[in-house]
Amino acid sequence: MLVIMQTAPTEEECGRVEAAIRDMGFTPLRVPGADRTAICVTGNRGPVDPSFLIRLPGVARCIPVTKPFKLVSREVHPADTVVEIGGVAVGGPDPVVVAGPCSVETEARTVEIARALRAANADLFRARLGSEGVGPYHFAGVGEEGLHTLERVREETGIPVITEIADPRTAERVAERVDAVEIAGRHMENEALLEIAGGLAVPVILERGPSATVEEWLMAAESLLAREKRDVVLCERGIRTGGQRRTLLDLHGVPVVRRMSHLPVLVDPSHAVAERDRVRPLARAALSAGASGIAIAVHTHPDTAYTDPMQTVDVPTFEGIQRDRAKIREFEAI
Amino acid sequence: MLVIMQTAPTEEECGRVEAAIRDMGFTPLRVPGADRTAICVTGNRGPVDPSFLIRLPGVARCIPVTKPFKLVSREVHPADTVVEIGGVAVGGPDPVVVAGPCSVETEARTVEIARALRAANADLFRARLGSEGVGPYHFAGVGEEGLHTLERVREETGIPVITEIADPRTAERVAERVDAVEIAGRHMENEALLEIAGGLAVPVILERGPSATVEEWLMAAESLLAREKRDVVLCERGIRTGGQRRTLLDLHGVPVVRRMSHLPVLVDPSHAVAERDRVRPLARAALSAGASGIAIAVHTHPDTAYTDPMQTVDVPTFEGIQRDRAKIREFEAI
Amino acid sequence: MLVIMQTAPTEEECGRVEAAIRDMGFTPLRVPGADRTAICVTGNRGPVDPSFLIRLPGVARCIPVTKPFKLVSREVHPADTVVEIGGVAVGGPDPVVVAGPCSVETEARTVEIARALRAANADLFRARLGSEGVGPYHFAGVGEEGLHTLERVREETGIPVITEIADPRTAERVAERVDAVEIAGRHMENEALLEIAGGLAVPVILERGPSATVEEWLMAAESLLAREKRDVVLCERGIRTGGQRRTLLDLHGVPVVRRMSHLPVLVDPSHAVAERDRVRPLARAALSAGASGIAIAVHTHPDTAYTDPMQTVDVPTFEGIQRDRAKIREFEAI
Amino acid sequence: MLVIMQTAPTEEECGRVEAAIRDMGFTPLRVPGADRTAICVTGNRGPVDPSFLIRLPGVARCIPVTKPFKLVSREVHPADTVVEIGGVAVGGPDPVVVAGPCSVETEARTVEIARALRAANADLFRARLGSEGVGPYHFAGVGEEGLHTLERVREETGIPVITEIADPRTAERVAERVDAVEIAGRHMENEALLEIAGGLAVPVILERGPSATVEEWLMAAESLLAREKRDVVLCERGIRTGGQRRTLLDLHGVPVVRRMSHLPVLVDPSHAVAERDRVRPLARAALSAGASGIAIAVHTHPDTAYTDPMQTVDVPTFEGIQRDRAKIREFEAI
Repeated sequence: MLVIMQTAPTEEECGRVEAAIRDMGFTPLRVPGADRTAICVTGNRGPVDPSFLIRLPGVARCIPVTKPFKLVSREVHPADTVVEIGGVAVGGPDPVVVAGPCSVETEARTVEIARALRAANADLFRARLGSEGVGPYHFAGVGEEGLHTLERVREETGIPVITEIADPRTAERVAERVDAVEIAGRHMENEALLEIAGGLAVPVILERGPSATVEEWLMAAESLLAREKRDVVLCERGIRTGGQRRTLLDLHGVPVVRRMSHLPVLVDPSHAVAERDRVRPLARAALSAGASGIAIAVHTHPDTAYTDPMQTVDVPTFEGIQRDRAKIREFEAI
Repeated sequence: MLVIMQTAPTEEECGRVEAAIRDMGFTPLRVPGADRTAICVTGNRGPVDPSFLIRLPGVARCIPVTKPFKLVSREVHPADTVVEIGGVAVGGPDPVVVAGPCSVETEARTVEIARALRAANADLFRARLGSEGVGPYHFAGVGEEGLHTLERVREETGIPVITEIADPRTAERVAERVDAVEIAGRHMENEALLEIAGGLAVPVILERGPSATVEEWLMAAESLLAREKRDVVLCERGIRTGGQRRTLLDLHGVPVVRRMSHLPVLVDPSHAVAERDRVRPLARAALSAGASGIAIAVHTHPDTAYTDPMQTVDVPTFEGIQRDRAKIREFEAI
Repeated sequence: MLVIMQTAPTEEECGRVEAAIRDMGFTPLRVPGADRTAICVTGNRGPVDPSFLIRLPGVARCIPVTKPFKLVSREVHPADTVVEIGGVAVGGPDPVVVAGPCSVETEARTVEIARALRAANADLFRARLGSEGVGPYHFAGVGEEGLHTLERVREETGIPVITEIADPRTAERVAERVDAVEIAGRHMENEALLEIAGGLAVPVILERGPSATVEEWLMAAESLLAREKRDVVLCERGIRTGGQRRTLLDLHGVPVVRRMSHLPVLVDPSHAVAERDRVRPLARAALSAGASGIAIAVHTHPDTAYTDPMQTVDVPTFEGIQRDRAKIREFEAI
Repeated sequence: MLVIMQTAPTEEECGRVEAAIRDMGFTPLRVPGADRTAICVTGNRGPVDPSFLIRLPGVARCIPVTKPFKLVSREVHPADTVVEIGGVAVGGPDPVVVAGPCSVETEARTVEIARALRAANADLFRARLGSEGVGPYHFAGVGEEGLHTLERVREETGIPVITEIADPRTAERVAERVDAVEIAGRHMENEALLEIAGGLAVPVILERGPSATVEEWLMAAESLLAREKRDVVLCERGIRTGGQRRTLLDLHGVPVVRRMSHLPVLVDPSHAVAERDRVRPLARAALSAGASGIAIAVHTHPDTAYTDPMQTVDVPTFEGIQRDRAKIREFEAI
């Protein structure tokens, strides 16, 4: 913490700030400047709460110096974290491809899709049990019964399965039957869910909230790591902006967060775009920007998908994305 | 739904769209234009899913005509809804003032604050049981034990009490012991919580999510009204923008939402501003813009408040806000 | 400038940073911490360019301490600036009301409006000569010929007149014939225009750019003050956000900028709202939030206004706004 | 235009709307629905101004059907536009690479950079004559004298040169001496500049404004095409969002705008990122997303670049970007 004094503070004002810093158990260090006097707070081992200091006479601003998160930070843990989901390494040198319909559908249809994805070399299968959004007029999802369908997918194809947790009352039961769970962006700051997720035996994929900064996203992940959870994967899936698209896929954020944190970062272009024909260019771009993998909504009959048909691609498009991945693997490391 | 055809569609393309509309059980109506042909979908009683139509050959765009919400809408229910919280009318001609510390503190301190607020004519008392935000480094809140403190506040002062619900596992227990519950902005799209809230016996205050549009906020409220819940109050508390403030209090939204919906709209300036001295001007402005009331973080010793001290005002400032309210009551109705 | 070193920097790394600071002519001051070492740059009289320091080995971040602007800042100039426009004080204890049609229309219609506004006690008259927006399909404005109409308005009613400057080739000619000029938000960062504006004899009203932070807005104003221009007025007129409104009137920004700067701040609710019936509530709220005045689009026949008819209010609504202003004058000072 | 009537409009209300549409010279077509009656405006050849209709009794909303732009639209001109800059095709099958220092520096340094870029196969050379931003404390640029330096670059290396126009008073003189001009994002809505640009003999690169939607950007381009200017190139360079980065490079926008418009779209990752090490991943991603080319700030001695040194890459990094481009050329067309 750096306390910036107003122009020409009195000695008494500076002294009172220094005394307050000492009262907090820290050591003040005065930095006189031409225009400004600043007083550094030293000796602290984490962020200092500025509430009290900012209100002292003569104080202009308090500037935090220590970043609010530690455990997720690359400075603390320089090597990339690699998370195993059902034996598939996420965050290693090879980007992974997660695929599946948006929602679990009937067992027959869901297994048919999974077989097509297996043939097209998808690494992981993902489908949602619950509703796609808020409001009384949506498809509510198949609910917990879909877990049986996901188990059938794994049996039939051998692909590890992932689904969403959204309710603290059922999250543990869901997690017992899949290979990883996902927390949707709109639950990124759902503390009850994060608390449970921090204790699960399977990896947790944490989507970025639609208006969360990278710092807030990392802070939500920090609350998982602070519960000794190590197998956490981040997932970018579009943020809100001033434009007319519902969400904007923040590929710019990929190198930003890769540099700040050691956690793997997936990108889900399907849920960020409104139209099918943008999925492949953005999947390419995500992998090119250095994402640890991509998550794609794919269906054998996308026009009749239960949810999100407009953004769901067909299997031939998915095969094209897989060929793109192969090309991108030839890129130089940077 | 209005289906806009691409420039110069063929008769076959138009015919296929019309057939598809008939297959959905609706009636197509062709609107030929100079540049454009449009085909209206008529006979539908709610929003039409455009997924299938948009993919037909020759279709350029689909424009929804029916708004996605009904029950919250002023068109369906022209008169203002008035919600009673412990006998206090919210949404009537007189704006209400909700006040309290951000978090429940010790019983002694909390009751002391409540007495001061009673003396200053606060209508409703609000304090949070849980954490102020996400991450492992926050004050976690007093938890359910604070309910006893809130009951003591009500006994001692007679002011009805409000607290937050954030966890579906405890929401019903909490609701039994207070006069109204609040759902924080970051839980606006927490379906499990909304589902429970829709069945509670006490009124629900629904904060706007920090990146929610007015339409999405009303849609979350719609999901409460769709469960026969009638006593719903909206609360604006700041949204995300491109600027450097953490949140921007959207007073512009007050007349916007008041016109679209019959539900009362509170404004919470305290949680949107970073600094204490902005609370009173924005409280004034909120009431002047037509809010149904304001919610203010007040403390007898704001510098030592357990949470959010920087934005918490003292009792004399709160008394000033009450004098402002009295002045604003003299405004002409518009 | 505060240079934050990465965790556990070597003595050599710290030494190299200190040497670089000395090379820039400043004095380094090392601040050892538990987790972090920081090195303060002292002795500088303005912002320090961090480009070079950030690239030295061992440096994690550079944090600016000196704010980028000075002349507009309340710290440098604590008293409110009062700007005289044709004898009307803007920024004094009494808020002003600017009114007029969006665009100059025919002389007869424009003078008719001005007479009605004079009768309703408008302080200043404003109307645009040019186009309302970009693109080939807009009304292009009456152009410089409208200056004669504005002069007639002043003769007939005695109200000082304001118009927009938007082209460096004509700005000086325009400024000679009016009492103040306005720079629209979309020209806030038009350096050529700011350069000319800095040398004009009449006051300059500088609108905030639609995505400008308060800091960037003040920096644009700083470039006027740096040219010895003192009579500068700020004008908030809506910013971009993630919502569905074209712009959001940032009333929250009024107390923020009033505290940071000594310059007067007008609010233009008309151009931020899409609909007429929101103008009066937001005008009230702007004055309640502490604006130095408001600017309202008014017309004797708003439905036939040449530009922006949907947001233009009629004269009786304007009279209501004036009655609101009278009530708000009775508020306590805060 | 589609006029949506309020629930249960009277026959008189509908009749009045139909009469008003006929008065405007168009033909009304009534569309009765279960909940809603809509009245289509047909026979119009461009956008209809809704101002008058929206105010008629019984009207709920007016929905525009005709898009506001035509000439830039892919519907009107399905084939990709290819723009020649000094003999280099922009918008053809091969993506181009624009490179150069942010600002023209001394002749010796600038020519040295250009030679290195020629050796590294840059297609086009770009450097600014003016200031990098607003405010009195920036490097003001070399001004028009830099044109001679740019001419020397062309002579020495044969690379076509591009610079920015920002002032209507000098734009034509500048354009005479370079191969293309660029309009910065902050001038995207500078009508005076667009008017001149529409008449220039050389191609115009139009950057997207930092808070402009894709639609507004295309509308600014439309105003060039409406002046018979055909050789227009778009350039994405970062937009404002709710996050903490100054700008966010909108790669998502590339496939969006490529589908809407036939104009070439460059991406400038350098000006959108704050740090050098993000330039190459985002350059890769931009080309992968389908950009017509990229514009990169490169310097032989980036740490001492006159402007923007933090985001300026060195020549070896640029050579890596060129190798990436070669790989991306092998991608399948989609």
